[in-house]
Amino acid sequence: MSGTFITFEGPDGAGKTSVLRAIVERLAPLLGDKLVLTREPGGKDSQVAEAIRDVVLDPNLPSMDAWTEALLYAASRRQHLVDTVLPALAADKVVVSDRYVDSSIAYQGGGRRLGIEAVTEINQFATKGIMPTATIYLDIRPEVGLQRIQENRQDEINRLDVEKLSFHQRVTDAYHQLATQYPERFLIINAEQDLADVITDTWTALMPILGIHD
Amino acid sequence: MSGTFITFEGPDGAGKTSVLRAIVERLAPLLGDKLVLTREPGGKDSQVAEAIRDVVLDPNLPSMDAWTEALLYAASRRQHLVDTVLPALAADKVVVSDRYVDSSIAYQGGGRRLGIEAVTEINQFATKGIMPTATIYLDIRPEVGLQRIQENRQDEINRLDVEKLSFHQRVTDAYHQLATQYPERFLIINAEQDLADVITDTWTALMPILGIHD
Repeated sequence: MSGTFITFEGPDGAGKTSVLRAIVERLAPLLGDKLVLTREPGGKDSQVAEAIRDVVLDPNLPSMDAWTEALLYAASRRQHLVDTVLPALAADKVVVSDRYVDSSIAYQGGGRRLGIEAVTEINQFATKGIMPTATIYLDIRPEVGLQRIQENRQDEINRLDVEKLSFHQRVTDAYHQLATQYPERFLIINAEQDLADVITDTWTALMPILGIHD
Repeated sequence: MSGTFITFEGPDGAGKTSVLRAIVERLAPLLGDKLVLTREPGGKDSQVAEAIRDVVLDPNLPSMDAWTEALLYAASRRQHLVDTVLPALAADKVVVSDRYVDSSIAYQGGGRRLGIEAVTEINQFATKGIMPTATIYLDIRPEVGLQRIQENRQDEINRLDVEKLSFHQRVTDAYHQLATQYPERFLIINAEQDLADVITDTWTALMPILGIHD
């Protein structure tokens, strides 16, 4: 694999969508069609992964067992990898994904208490060890993130949002455990700053990985 | 758990649907509302499992990676267990399921070559060790089963049917390995006989498990 695989991670309210949009706007003119932007669950150009996304996020379905959810996210991830990520990396592209396996470990493993080990094991069947070159982690305290969500809601409410602060605390704790375990790929950005500063820090962290000189 | 959990298994063309229908017709008047008939993927009274079934069997989706498929079947199985099987067993019912975990091990593990061990491991996250009291296995040679499918097609063609004989051989081999590994629950029925004899043998095998005296 010759391409570069960048993932964006963080708890709800960290501003991931806004930061990602700003970074992509700066990257697009530099990379042209070398840039592949995608997101999980589901993913660009993966009909099967998108169909699984539609099930896992369907607000009209009854609430789902946490193991079902973890297996569905892993299934969607597998197909996204096969259809989108691996072909792009093989073609030497830069794949930027809004969420990847760390999200499952944090949300299902930590948040839903399935355990980091179990969710990591399930995802081994999905990823077969394919991990990002670098992971931008937007670090924010759960109480700050939750307050932002409540004040500044722009997209629709989803099922995970309604969970309590303790859930968000467990998500954040799991992310921090991953960041400690994989310091070589986790780029930790202080997401409690003003958005402009978060974007600047993210860009600065990504530059050397992408071989970009300002 | 106080109920009884019976699964029906077998390769394509074994006559599983016909045998199951005949057995249920005889069981229904004896068991009344103690009988719960269900099937995988999906399952009675599980909206989430049915939604996953719709994805995994959708003929309009592009072909799916075998790992994606195995994870989807496991996800559907988990929710079916939680919504349908476990509550019925807790209420002392007799659950009869058309397919369960052995199908995944045979079709994805054997047929699609993912390996019996890997598919067993994935399904540990779905079943948490909940296994059938007894499994009716309709035993038929792959070439006989395939010929029956081609001659006697009644339901719609599905994706798995179009696979080759070698696929069916691997499915059957994996089933035989399971039957050898779990002789205490596998009830092997010769499914190459006339349908009436297959039904009689199945009924005779089930009677002692269900405490029924003819």
